[in-house]
Amino acid sequence: MSVTAAQGFVAAGVTAGLKTSGRPDVALVVNRGRRKSAAAVFTSNRAKAHPVLWSQQVVGDGIAEAVVLNSGGANCFTGPFGFQTTHATAETVAEALGVSAGDVVVCSTGLIGVGDQVFRDKVLSGSIAAASALTVDGGLDAATAIMTTDTKPKQAVVAGDGWVVGGMAKGAGMLAPGLATMLVVLTTDADVDHGGLDDALHSATRVTFDRLDSDGCMSTNDTVLLLASGESGVVPDAEEFRAAVTELCADLAEQLQADAEGASHDIRIEIVGAASDDDAVEVGRSIARNNLFKAAVFGNDPNWGRVLAAIGTTSAEFDPYDVDVSMNGVRVCHAGAPDRPSDAVDLTARAVHVLVDLRSGGHEATILTNDLTHDYVHENSAYSS
Amino acid sequence: MSVTAAQGFVAAGVTAGLKTSGRPDVALVVNRGRRKSAAAVFTSNRAKAHPVLWSQQVVGDGIAEAVVLNSGGANCFTGPFGFQTTHATAETVAEALGVSAGDVVVCSTGLIGVGDQVFRDKVLSGSIAAASALTVDGGLDAATAIMTTDTKPKQAVVAGDGWVVGGMAKGAGMLAPGLATMLVVLTTDADVDHGGLDDALHSATRVTFDRLDSDGCMSTNDTVLLLASGESGVVPDAEEFRAAVTELCADLAEQLQADAEGASHDIRIEIVGAASDDDAVEVGRSIARNNLFKAAVFGNDPNWGRVLAAIGTTSAEFDPYDVDVSMNGVRVCHAGAPDRPSDAVDLTARAVHVLVDLRSGGHEATILTNDLTHDYVHENSAYSS
Repeated sequence: MSVTAAQGFVAAGVTAGLKTSGRPDVALVVNRGRRKSAAAVFTSNRAKAHPVLWSQQVVGDGIAEAVVLNSGGANCFTGPFGFQTTHATAETVAEALGVSAGDVVVCSTGLIGVGDQVFRDKVLSGSIAAASALTVDGGLDAATAIMTTDTKPKQAVVAGDGWVVGGMAKGAGMLAPGLATMLVVLTTDADVDHGGLDDALHSATRVTFDRLDSDGCMSTNDTVLLLASGESGVVPDAEEFRAAVTELCADLAEQLQADAEGASHDIRIEIVGAASDDDAVEVGRSIARNNLFKAAVFGNDPNWGRVLAAIGTTSAEFDPYDVDVSMNGVRVCHAGAPDRPSDAVDLTARAVHVLVDLRSGGHEATILTNDLTHDYVHENSAYSS
Repeated sequence: MSVTAAQGFVAAGVTAGLKTSGRPDVALVVNRGRRKSAAAVFTSNRAKAHPVLWSQQVVGDGIAEAVVLNSGGANCFTGPFGFQTTHATAETVAEALGVSAGDVVVCSTGLIGVGDQVFRDKVLSGSIAAASALTVDGGLDAATAIMTTDTKPKQAVVAGDGWVVGGMAKGAGMLAPGLATMLVVLTTDADVDHGGLDDALHSATRVTFDRLDSDGCMSTNDTVLLLASGESGVVPDAEEFRAAVTELCADLAEQLQADAEGASHDIRIEIVGAASDDDAVEVGRSIARNNLFKAAVFGNDPNWGRVLAAIGTTSAEFDPYDVDVSMNGVRVCHAGAPDRPSDAVDLTARAVHVLVDLRSGGHEATILTNDLTHDYVHENSAYSS
């Protein structure tokens, strides 16, 4: 049910011919509820795609009526023509729905530099087709239409007390199309204004999507959108709402990690004993981005030396000679020296847990990543994406 | 001739049994000249190996008589025993040569966490053997003994006006043993004091080794050492000396890049039009560390979108929509929009040139890197190193 689990939302997914595979490639989600609150988080990459630049303006007033999404082209670095395409897409959807173009969010995903007249024609015709296919059961179709190299649609729902929040996501962290990778649309029928949505969304993404770091490559198109219809008539407790949105985002983030096609391991890097949350995140990220470590995990090699070499590059507060490292429950390094033998670590399962104790405080963070594999190199070298 | 090209230096390379391959693994370079000036640059990784911690003290007074180097084990994160091994190595060399242990630099390279009693015994016996094998023709033997997965020894010489500066290097940027990767010993018979050496070495490494970024993974053992014997009796012009050391380091850095075993392309990333040198380096490095871009080059795919997505993550001064990108002479992106067709770019040759014009100033920098290949993943996953 995903984006249509919440009352007040309809959705559709159609085939516009953007994908050479002939699979669905244009999705539309519309809020028909009594309120049209919206909040969003966008990529922090300075190289932002045209749809991101447009959508930042749309949600600036905390209101959005609809979001149209296409796969098969990122419409990024496509010049003034590309921005006009995004604008025309919003206008087309607005006209079909009888709303203002200024309330239509636009998301695109695919290859950077793609956005010519043919692309525009297909996106516009697809948008019109989607607008006439909207149903309360259209969640799965929408989730399917935003897939790129994802092997399965990603959806989740969390129930509150008289309201629900649901959503869909696309993205394949380690895959090339992953460059313009993560699009997420969340919907709720809880009665929440823009401020409440914004608070919950930022709080949730900070500890979920922001801590998913498959390959260290930041996208130009990342968008996470949260829409509220108010149709349940229930004003949720702010803390409960925040917790539900966080749970939903964590679920979708793990689905993204698990479907990173090139990956053979899902790695949870847990940093404890940090002097601050920022320190814990910085240390976790340094490991998640270390190619030598990631290649070792692919080879089922518990190479803890690479973990220490990675964290030594950070400015976090700790003594490199007073750090513990455990892999899948085996403490292989204690106080900066070998502890239990590496042979005792079994890395053959897909799930890998790396625990680093910085012994410098009470803060912690978990970063999700994947290993560096032959399939990752293949996916990102054999196809332009 | 490398480290023995300069008058006053002798060297040796012997087999101590540290490498399972049975190849030479302990090298010694000794300054027998009228002066014993020394300067060094060490890894900026906070996780420093014991030999680095020791050697920083040795060169602190600007004097060194000898440097002993071993492959087959990094002696990093090996606990107090590891530091004692480094100390014992210096003592052993000092005794054999009749010098002070406080003037013996120690370098190690290999797997982190390796440094037990067997390792120590072999390093010590190898050091004694090397001390009795010193010759004025020992440069190649020494350069051979410090190799890990390098496929060839790396040596270079630059002649000045009545003096020479020569050197050897080991390191395989993209390879796993590359973790404890770069060891460089440079020698000169020019009559230069510690201050002159220090100035020339920092000036040179800043634009050579510091701009070689094969896989973004910083080593725990990196050491670049410059020794002067004064035996030529010539005091060189400071600028000429700096230029010669820079030329030498650039030569060795390119040899390191070319021998990165997993690599199939040597990539020169040239950033021009930057507002500052730091901006140019930051932008170049962001591209050099982008796995998606590096995998695309492996696939001979001129994917300029990944270049823009990479530089968008930096804080350098530029407008993402006013940037030019050329690949092997073809400008594929102009002012943030597609320019000449990517099909016109031929990336089949090993040498790849990426030119980014930030159009924000007159500063520039060149970063050397390699592509991300199946062999890189294989090397770094199939063997613990």
